[in-house]
Amino acid sequence: MKKFINNVDDILTESLTGFGVAHSEILKVNLKPDFISRKNNPTKPKVALISGGGSGHEPLHGGFVGYGMLDAACPGQVFSAPTPDQMEAAANDVHSGKGILFIVKNYSGDIMNFEMGADMLEFEHQTIIVNDDVAVEDSTFTTGRRGVAGTIIVEKAVGSLAETGASLEDCKNFGDHVNKMTASMGVAFTSCTVPAAGKPTFDISAEEMEFGVGIHGEPGRRREKIKSANEITSELMGAILEDLKPENNQEVLLHVNGFGGTPLMELYLLFNVAKDILNKKNIKVSRSLIGNFTTSLDMAGGSITVTKLDQKILQHWDSPVHTAALRWKI
Amino acid sequence: MKKFINNVDDILTESLTGFGVAHSEILKVNLKPDFISRKNNPTKPKVALISGGGSGHEPLHGGFVGYGMLDAACPGQVFSAPTPDQMEAAANDVHSGKGILFIVKNYSGDIMNFEMGADMLEFEHQTIIVNDDVAVEDSTFTTGRRGVAGTIIVEKAVGSLAETGASLEDCKNFGDHVNKMTASMGVAFTSCTVPAAGKPTFDISAEEMEFGVGIHGEPGRRREKIKSANEITSELMGAILEDLKPENNQEVLLHVNGFGGTPLMELYLLFNVAKDILNKKNIKVSRSLIGNFTTSLDMAGGSITVTKLDQKILQHWDSPVHTAALRWKI
Repeated sequence: MKKFINNVDDILTESLTGFGVAHSEILKVNLKPDFISRKNNPTKPKVALISGGGSGHEPLHGGFVGYGMLDAACPGQVFSAPTPDQMEAAANDVHSGKGILFIVKNYSGDIMNFEMGADMLEFEHQTIIVNDDVAVEDSTFTTGRRGVAGTIIVEKAVGSLAETGASLEDCKNFGDHVNKMTASMGVAFTSCTVPAAGKPTFDISAEEMEFGVGIHGEPGRRREKIKSANEITSELMGAILEDLKPENNQEVLLHVNGFGGTPLMELYLLFNVAKDILNKKNIKVSRSLIGNFTTSLDMAGGSITVTKLDQKILQHWDSPVHTAALRWKI
Repeated sequence: MKKFINNVDDILTESLTGFGVAHSEILKVNLKPDFISRKNNPTKPKVALISGGGSGHEPLHGGFVGYGMLDAACPGQVFSAPTPDQMEAAANDVHSGKGILFIVKNYSGDIMNFEMGADMLEFEHQTIIVNDDVAVEDSTFTTGRRGVAGTIIVEKAVGSLAETGASLEDCKNFGDHVNKMTASMGVAFTSCTVPAAGKPTFDISAEEMEFGVGIHGEPGRRREKIKSANEITSELMGAILEDLKPENNQEVLLHVNGFGGTPLMELYLLFNVAKDILNKKNIKVSRSLIGNFTTSLDMAGGSITVTKLDQKILQHWDSPVHTAALRWKI
């Protein structure tokens, strides 16, 4: 298998250990149960934000633990939901008296395990379910829409609000609002290879792409011949805008996300095309984020996410953040 | 071809245009001749740092234009040296009266074209040649050692010194010093695919790796069966330390760089192994950098870079930086 590994069973532990050492000024890694949490507890009580999900999507979610975003992240095995004891242990570690807010991507296994973890808690908690993927209703591991790259925008915006001392209810409502303002869709050129499987998750010919793919390689809308960046982007954007129905002169955040195996050069090209499409429709790209943030191991391809900005989302997007994978103004 | 592109000939222009829009608060992109330069000219005269090289290694070098690092970057076509008119135009744009310092990776084409560009200038200039790759002496495109992922460390450290108003001579000497304190070596599991070629640069079987590969897919020391992360790292580190000959208790910066197609999860695992090897040798990992910084398009694999830290390098590594791909304390 073409990977830097020792034993398949140890990948997560070895990787998390390295991650903890590399970013020891921001976070600490707990093993068994596995969770990543902020190193410096906040000085004032705040709503504690906890996210998580299967590993293999790095830097999501551990890369977003730190000031202005998450208080903790619970990484499951590759593409597997974390177990309830992880969420319970993380919550006990980061709770500071204002309750716990879970941010969960909409996959049946994650929803179930986060619910079980939440049920074990003796303090107040709420859950935001992110379901930004407009490609398909229901999927291999999901009832309803999948949660994909829009999750980072929810985590950043709510993370900032929580930092101000806002209530659990306000944070929960704001997260639901950001989720509603956000839509994503992606395309895969190749499959990823899950270490434990040792072979590609799905077969795809040299001329084909999976249009509307999920971040674990779940089928999208259809399999078809690879098209030009202009054609791909036009169709992705069509589906996204049909969902968001932006007004004339709407300001948006445009996020182009790589799945892991696609060069940055292509992601900026994709951004350029997407930005032109929006401009032609009188939609203003006020903020942008381009890079590999919600990955699918080594999959080639990427996704586009659009968030309709209002004053409040803009303010909380722009505010300082200090995590392993996102850092500004601090 | 499994890429987000419209026409092969337009990739660079379209990608650069997107890059310029996405980071318009930090930099501006000039087309024909192509160069990226800092948007806000420094308030006081400073040595202007200009780097560049073939495209396909993003975020290197354009991603490092901004406060505390480069004043300009000149991107050539994919894996091709930039042309002298690019360096001339960039130098004229960013010169502020204290001279130009070119930072060039050691490839014959780059050296030649940067020299020709420098000859066109009417003001003072110097050149730092980075040659950190300990894998081989002489290579497909190089006489002597290749310049690879250590370049970012030279650019960050000298960029910080230049920001203080240091002289051209001091900046040049410091860059040469950082280069001397830095050694790198990499391994490839797959080839990359250059867009204009449309097929992998080299063939490699499913069980093999190229040990000591260059960042354009140049041959390394040998082709062999894939080994465990422990074995690979041990051998990479052996070659690096043989070159650097660190003292007992030496403090180092450990940089694990992905070539583009390898997940972050594996890079952190590699970092974990490398850090343990150093610790066992009484070498202290004081700073670290893990991620895709000096890439080879979609190549799977990565490299390890070690820089021996002294007080001055440490100070200039830690200082504030604000670029598209590296940002802290600002």
